[in-house]
Amino acid sequence: MSYHYLVDIALILLSTKVLGIVTKRLQMPQVVGALLAGIVLGPAVLGVIQSTEFLSQVSELGVIVMMFTAGLGTSLDDLKHSGKSGFLVALCGVIVPLIGGTALAMLFNSSGSDNVFIQDVFVGVVLTATSVSITVETLKEMGKLTTVVGNTILAAALIDDVLGLIALTIVTSVGGSSGDSLLMVLVKVVLFFVFVFVVGILVKKLMDWYIANVHSTDLQRYPIFAFVLCLLMSFCAEHFFGVADITGAFAAGLIISTTSKAKYIEVKFAPLSYLLLTPIFFASIGLSMDLPEMDAKILLFSVLLVIVAVLSKLIGCGLGAKICGLNNHQCKQVGVGMVCRGEVALIVANKGSALGLMPEIFFGPIIIMVVATTVITPILLKLAYRKSAAYDEMLESTLVDRYDEVEQLDYIAENLIRANNHMMKKDKDKKAEKVKK
Amino acid sequence: MSYHYLVDIALILLSTKVLGIVTKRLQMPQVVGALLAGIVLGPAVLGVIQSTEFLSQVSELGVIVMMFTAGLGTSLDDLKHSGKSGFLVALCGVIVPLIGGTALAMLFNSSGSDNVFIQDVFVGVVLTATSVSITVETLKEMGKLTTVVGNTILAAALIDDVLGLIALTIVTSVGGSSGDSLLMVLVKVVLFFVFVFVVGILVKKLMDWYIANVHSTDLQRYPIFAFVLCLLMSFCAEHFFGVADITGAFAAGLIISTTSKAKYIEVKFAPLSYLLLTPIFFASIGLSMDLPEMDAKILLFSVLLVIVAVLSKLIGCGLGAKICGLNNHQCKQVGVGMVCRGEVALIVANKGSALGLMPEIFFGPIIIMVVATTVITPILLKLAYRKSAAYDEMLESTLVDRYDEVEQLDYIAENLIRANNHMMKKDKDKKAEKVKK
Repeated sequence: MSYHYLVDIALILLSTKVLGIVTKRLQMPQVVGALLAGIVLGPAVLGVIQSTEFLSQVSELGVIVMMFTAGLGTSLDDLKHSGKSGFLVALCGVIVPLIGGTALAMLFNSSGSDNVFIQDVFVGVVLTATSVSITVETLKEMGKLTTVVGNTILAAALIDDVLGLIALTIVTSVGGSSGDSLLMVLVKVVLFFVFVFVVGILVKKLMDWYIANVHSTDLQRYPIFAFVLCLLMSFCAEHFFGVADITGAFAAGLIISTTSKAKYIEVKFAPLSYLLLTPIFFASIGLSMDLPEMDAKILLFSVLLVIVAVLSKLIGCGLGAKICGLNNHQCKQVGVGMVCRGEVALIVANKGSALGLMPEIFFGPIIIMVVATTVITPILLKLAYRKSAAYDEMLESTLVDRYDEVEQLDYIAENLIRANNHMMKKDKDKKAEKVKK
Repeated sequence: MSYHYLVDIALILLSTKVLGIVTKRLQMPQVVGALLAGIVLGPAVLGVIQSTEFLSQVSELGVIVMMFTAGLGTSLDDLKHSGKSGFLVALCGVIVPLIGGTALAMLFNSSGSDNVFIQDVFVGVVLTATSVSITVETLKEMGKLTTVVGNTILAAALIDDVLGLIALTIVTSVGGSSGDSLLMVLVKVVLFFVFVFVVGILVKKLMDWYIANVHSTDLQRYPIFAFVLCLLMSFCAEHFFGVADITGAFAAGLIISTTSKAKYIEVKFAPLSYLLLTPIFFASIGLSMDLPEMDAKILLFSVLLVIVAVLSKLIGCGLGAKICGLNNHQCKQVGVGMVCRGEVALIVANKGSALGLMPEIFFGPIIIMVVATTVITPILLKLAYRKSAAYDEMLESTLVDRYDEVEQLDYIAENLIRANNHMMKKDKDKKAEKVKK
């Protein structure tokens, strides 16, 4: 038996966290640090960790859990209330990068594969993803989260996830190896959404009934049952509908988000993610990246990809905001706030690479694009706000409240534990005193 | 790519939980249900799940995390305060089963291996393990947990874990494949304990300094750093000292239990265990068990093993309690309360089987022994208490308080989440009303 995987996991956990802390100190997002840690450990730099079946399957499971919790955090109620402006910003912010990414990839893709067009579109799909957490952190820091702009960004990011996944679903289905005709593929996609809808209603009814009628002191069953649903829906999506498993996981999360145990389940999934699955995901991204393959052409592609990524979101989302009647300053702020790609773009790229829908040489540039947009977003946001302090309008928003909840609950739990420890210590001291007397 | 592992995990999670709930309804411990689920899924009954590298490595990781949290739950303070009676009960309760198990295995072991004596002693080591959680549940139900007997059992079980691990450490070191002389092995074991002591003091100092001087809103780092320590100590135990990795994990847990973040870390590790690692561990126990191999001799061995397991703990612990001056009724109650083996015995047996220190044919009987002692303990306890209601003496005990904490924190968290949801809903309604006006 080899025990080296213990050291591998320890190295991955330690380096992703330590570099995450370092990048945070440097006013950069933790995701950047975690991703850099993966690249440093991988063959591109140190090569201390080899890819194993164990690591790659844990990483796949990590992707599924990350998309499940993304779905879980997207309350359907919030989606309904996010309104027209959120929808328009998200829609334009998906269409423009989709076209921009596809066009750029067409110029550079020389893979000569049968499905070269699908490969190009896939690069466009990767560009549609938005990771809003970094924008939220920055706006919070500047005290601008509860403004019209902040609220529009939050709403648009929620819808962006759904639209991006629909695009991914269609592209992977069409480009998949099932050999189905285009019509059949579209029928299957529609059937999948019907399937999600039916399962959603059944699960919601069943859970409501179960929670109302079965009283148990054992709360662990709820996260477990939710996880089972997530795994089965991921499998069904791939196996019966030819749809990406992460779409199934996201749908399962959305379904669970409608039940009254959603928040509890979300809190319990967090440590499973950050203690094991997410760090291994970042490491495996780094493991699948080889820097030496970069030549002048790929370098040029990387630079252009970053530019297209930034401009397409800026223009797309800004346009959406303009249509909704926001002023020019606000449009710029919304556009800049949506620039950041993050783990979602990586997940999508990873998926495409596994399905053969993305040439290997595009993988490096996409990682560069993710790092660049993630690093640049806080800087651009601060610039965009510098000139327009006068235009802010404060808002009360449930979207903003929701975003902070899990973190707050964590604090409350920590304080409870501390208070409890303190009380127990006092208790013990009292008893010890009694014994002395 | 194969997606079948998603279904495997879903099946494992669902069946271990559902059978756990069923056995709980039948007044039997959940462990029994989880273990039965593993056996049913494995080759012995349905054979629906094949053993894969992924499952076996996740299961190994699960064992390490389970032992780490066991160490984390064993506060050194509590160990110091558990006193003479706890120590004597634990010591006799380790020695008698060790001798009994070894003697029985000698009669039946026909493996003809070089280290046949070590193999026999290993069966004895498996019998030393005590799983106290089931006894605690039963005593709580009967309202007898806060008695002299309840407190003695809790204290003895804590020390039992440590003594059992010392026995395991010595046996695996001596029987290991390192080719070291007996003296060298013992030197290494002693060096390992020195290593644990030194690392313990350094980590404690470092953590205290860190918590006092680095103020961060990011609490995730504490469970992550603790996990890194656990993984590295498990690796060092195996790699440098020839000691079982689970001993290293337990030691890491003990070290972390002395820091002020111990409880927080324990709470965060719980979902990692029950959402993924523990169910897969039970499944992999079932996967490595083949029922068809049972013949008359093994059946006889199984029956005798159960009898020796019950009697050796009853006599050993009862004797220890007698020496400490408890009356006959109380001695019987203490002895019965320590009969239950559980996941710890399985972990030890699994370890031995992986190291070639236990003949494969003993694996089935040991599982039968674990199930039998686990099922029989609550029944015996109720019988032992039926005749002696008059002898109870209530006690205040911090050991008892500690046992309930994690569960209580879970409840508080759930209620907070519910209150929070309720408030947010009211907030939203208010806002909606405002908009209407």
